[in-house]
Amino acid sequence: MYRTHTCGELRASDEGKRVVLAGWIERIRDLGGVKFIVLRDRYGRTQIVVNPDSPAYETVTQLSREDVINIEGVVRKRPPNAVTSELTGEIEVLAEKLNILSKSDLPPFYPGDDVSEEMRLKYRYLDLRTQRMTNNIITRHKLAFAARRYLSENNFLEIETPYLTKSTPEGARDFLVPSRLKKGSFYALPQSPQLMKQILMVSGMDRYFQIVRCFRDEDLRADRQPEFTQIDIEMSFVHMEDVLQLAEELIRSMYAEVGIKLPEKFDRISYEEAMEKYGSDKPDRRYGMELQDLTQFFKSSEFKIIQDVLSKGGSVKGFKARIPMSRKIADEYSEFVKNFGLGGVLWFRLENGQIASTTVKYLEKEYTEISKAYSMEEGDVFILAAHDNRERLSEALGALRLKIGREHVKVEGFDALWVIDFPFLEWSEEENRFVARHHPFTMPYEEDINSGVELSKVRAHAYDMVINGFEVGGGSIRIHSRELQEKVFDIIGLTKEEAQEKFGFFLDALRYGVPPHGGIAFGLDRLAAIAVGADNIREVIAFPKTSSGTCLLTNAPSKVYPSQLEELGITLKE
Amino acid sequence: MYRTHTCGELRASDEGKRVVLAGWIERIRDLGGVKFIVLRDRYGRTQIVVNPDSPAYETVTQLSREDVINIEGVVRKRPPNAVTSELTGEIEVLAEKLNILSKSDLPPFYPGDDVSEEMRLKYRYLDLRTQRMTNNIITRHKLAFAARRYLSENNFLEIETPYLTKSTPEGARDFLVPSRLKKGSFYALPQSPQLMKQILMVSGMDRYFQIVRCFRDEDLRADRQPEFTQIDIEMSFVHMEDVLQLAEELIRSMYAEVGIKLPEKFDRISYEEAMEKYGSDKPDRRYGMELQDLTQFFKSSEFKIIQDVLSKGGSVKGFKARIPMSRKIADEYSEFVKNFGLGGVLWFRLENGQIASTTVKYLEKEYTEISKAYSMEEGDVFILAAHDNRERLSEALGALRLKIGREHVKVEGFDALWVIDFPFLEWSEEENRFVARHHPFTMPYEEDINSGVELSKVRAHAYDMVINGFEVGGGSIRIHSRELQEKVFDIIGLTKEEAQEKFGFFLDALRYGVPPHGGIAFGLDRLAAIAVGADNIREVIAFPKTSSGTCLLTNAPSKVYPSQLEELGITLKE
Repeated sequence: MYRTHTCGELRASDEGKRVVLAGWIERIRDLGGVKFIVLRDRYGRTQIVVNPDSPAYETVTQLSREDVINIEGVVRKRPPNAVTSELTGEIEVLAEKLNILSKSDLPPFYPGDDVSEEMRLKYRYLDLRTQRMTNNIITRHKLAFAARRYLSENNFLEIETPYLTKSTPEGARDFLVPSRLKKGSFYALPQSPQLMKQILMVSGMDRYFQIVRCFRDEDLRADRQPEFTQIDIEMSFVHMEDVLQLAEELIRSMYAEVGIKLPEKFDRISYEEAMEKYGSDKPDRRYGMELQDLTQFFKSSEFKIIQDVLSKGGSVKGFKARIPMSRKIADEYSEFVKNFGLGGVLWFRLENGQIASTTVKYLEKEYTEISKAYSMEEGDVFILAAHDNRERLSEALGALRLKIGREHVKVEGFDALWVIDFPFLEWSEEENRFVARHHPFTMPYEEDINSGVELSKVRAHAYDMVINGFEVGGGSIRIHSRELQEKVFDIIGLTKEEAQEKFGFFLDALRYGVPPHGGIAFGLDRLAAIAVGADNIREVIAFPKTSSGTCLLTNAPSKVYPSQLEELGITLKE
Repeated sequence: MYRTHTCGELRASDEGKRVVLAGWIERIRDLGGVKFIVLRDRYGRTQIVVNPDSPAYETVTQLSREDVINIEGVVRKRPPNAVTSELTGEIEVLAEKLNILSKSDLPPFYPGDDVSEEMRLKYRYLDLRTQRMTNNIITRHKLAFAARRYLSENNFLEIETPYLTKSTPEGARDFLVPSRLKKGSFYALPQSPQLMKQILMVSGMDRYFQIVRCFRDEDLRADRQPEFTQIDIEMSFVHMEDVLQLAEELIRSMYAEVGIKLPEKFDRISYEEAMEKYGSDKPDRRYGMELQDLTQFFKSSEFKIIQDVLSKGGSVKGFKARIPMSRKIADEYSEFVKNFGLGGVLWFRLENGQIASTTVKYLEKEYTEISKAYSMEEGDVFILAAHDNRERLSEALGALRLKIGREHVKVEGFDALWVIDFPFLEWSEEENRFVARHHPFTMPYEEDINSGVELSKVRAHAYDMVINGFEVGGGSIRIHSRELQEKVFDIIGLTKEEAQEKFGFFLDALRYGVPPHGGIAFGLDRLAAIAVGADNIREVIAFPKTSSGTCLLTNAPSKVYPSQLEELGITLKE
């Protein structure tokens, strides 16, 4: 038997037991001829003592870090002054036998060494040996299992949908898989099982979920992966309220499993309110610093820049912050908002009870009124900007708010909320047409459609869950009428023929008795990253890819044999 | 609210309750002007009664089968003579309101109609509405969840491994995914996460599992799918015994979850014994009819055909069966074994206490001795064959035994066993080299290797679980020494350069401290099919593909736009 106990298991109450432990050597020290080994496995660390008179002594002198060994010996209490805070810190094992199971070469780095992420990914098996990464993987496992348990207990069936499926080029770019049996044809890897889960509702499955890999062939941003994991959910005979309640309870129970308490009830704010107050549809409210509409204070201002904006129907917005301020910092913030098309920021501070600002001579009256209206205290800063496009103004200030928050505001705890009533459509400059903001299977507000408001104002029965400023999930009530679905395809510019070619099988399914249904999908990677406090999802993925889509461990993607391409009927373009 | 209860929920104790139900119309009957609707959802069926004086009556006349409706009404007990055995058979709901949620066109068939599998797959959403298919999907869900629960409770972590990974052309053919960011390079979809799970052991994860999709681009046999689901398991610091015990308990607990009791202890037989007794490495022992070595009975026989075989060192084997027999049937069986290279079968029957056979005049003495040795009773038949290659003889008779068993023996219950001690290698005629029988990461018996037996006789620490004649899982103890792994690569004919190119990252990982480890992988599709008694895994997959790899629902694989190929840097070969 390789071991009787793990390295995280023995306690003072095990004193006197004969045990076998196995694991990696994390450290060896020699104290006056006695060898002390810290033996490590996934479960913890136990100190092993090898005396010079032990039969194990000869072997121990050949050992080095990261060797895999097992030892047999007797548990004894440590002397009081040697007890550590580790769970196994009260005991040590006096080794009588010691086997080397696997010698380690000198590794390129030791687990936990401060090395580049590139090295960590290339030798992921060394990196994963750290307690931090081990805990990240354990937390991810616990979250996924808790999700499955909660959903199973609530009558959801986990149903697997195909990974080799049909290319439906609406949304992101598909990964394609050439078919060998049907040359010239391709499968696509699913961007999400959206249509399949809706078809499962048409099939009467009533409540579906799946923790499922999804694939998007996009130019990768720092925190995106070409494959990512979704907790995908769909329910029949429900309204938005049902989905929100279920989803909230799900996430609460998952986080509770890893010791995180989320609010009993998540706040709900509309997309419009989120944009107004935070300039973002995924606000992190923990930073405070809500955006304020300050336009009224400037109605009679003679400050030219602002007057120009207001005369075009623009707005002035700003937020109060408690941060250092200087001309240099203001310049930096101005540069920052210029990326969003703004001219810059204004600012003032309350200093010795007085307004202090580089623009105080032009705007003292307005600043004073604002400082009173928002109960500014000594040292508070107000940052303002003006623009004729109110949404752009909000976005720019929202982004600045976030930047300032991250740099200056120490936050803790968890802010969880729903953003609802998203716009149904958004204008795509690139394609010169409306596209569905969520996806084209989302139910629009029929009252908006029927009342004939302009298309950009039509709201959708769509909702996002936001935790600590990250969109962790999003969903919608779906269209369950073929007629409405065809109308929506028409609105987003698909001809009847295109709609039939891309989505014909789905439109067919809508003919034969469809329950009203809706759902949501959560990003498991993101949920896990938030739970462990990691700022990058790569920290909670065992084998992630780099931003160029490479696996540094295996070197995928890689060249293949010409015969493989031959069989698939494809050739590389020169 | 669309419903207060499901269609499987109401009982006599709910009498008098006002309820809302939603579902599909399975049947409408008119009895003397009163309308009776059988309303169906995933949970069951409830009878709805609509009286002519009900406000719902006008709507009910517009309804047809498979429409989706909801109704509001009051639960009442059925008259005693109308009670059915259905769970909701004691009650019905007297409808007062009725809404049509979705009209159904006339479907191409009604759920449960006897139509071709092609139709069932094309309109899968209609097929999945049957109770049988719904139950199959539910059983599959329960099995998967039970597996996860059992493994989680036993300290296994579910860890996701990449789907976009490296092509390792050892084994089956890979599905390839062209990379857009690195043109000319390809990801491969994993045939199994074998190397990744071993690397997770090197990472110290100790106990890993994953219910994971695997992909093999093979010419599909009737019961194969290009993507299939595996319960993949790996454990550190274990011997074969540990894996077998864990795996057995896992499968028992999964099957218990769906009401199937497997034996407390699975028998274990060696590969050699399985081949000797059943001519198969996945025997279904429920048929009885073990193969017997009859060579000794023919040592002094003068029957030429047999003497020829024996003089070449061949064998005679056969089995006792209780089946109809005639010259015609014997001819059919002879034809059958000719496919395996045998000359044909001999047979005799005990009839009125006498040996009856077309060959009785040549072999009466031998037949008589056999009939006594195997205690043949009136009507028993013995089928025999001879061949100089004993393994081929066993295989042929094993296949004939299985054919006869399926045609003539009524079996029930579950036969679960382990087949162990597989040969490490098998000779590939095609490639003119030894290949690994399980895979090249399997630990060979070191005593066999060191004792210098011929390579074909070296045994492996490999094991298969067999239930009812299907290999439901297989695994092995793995090589954890880089030196031995390199030696095995050499034995199977990989040059050092090839080994480095294909498996270099894995050989590297073996340098830095590797725990002894082993594992197993189960086919979830097969386990589910056996549990529901389906003879094809397509019956337990929501959206399976045909044997040509086509999804009849979506028509995947399909043509893509030239621009998509352009972006990937590939072209179709003319």
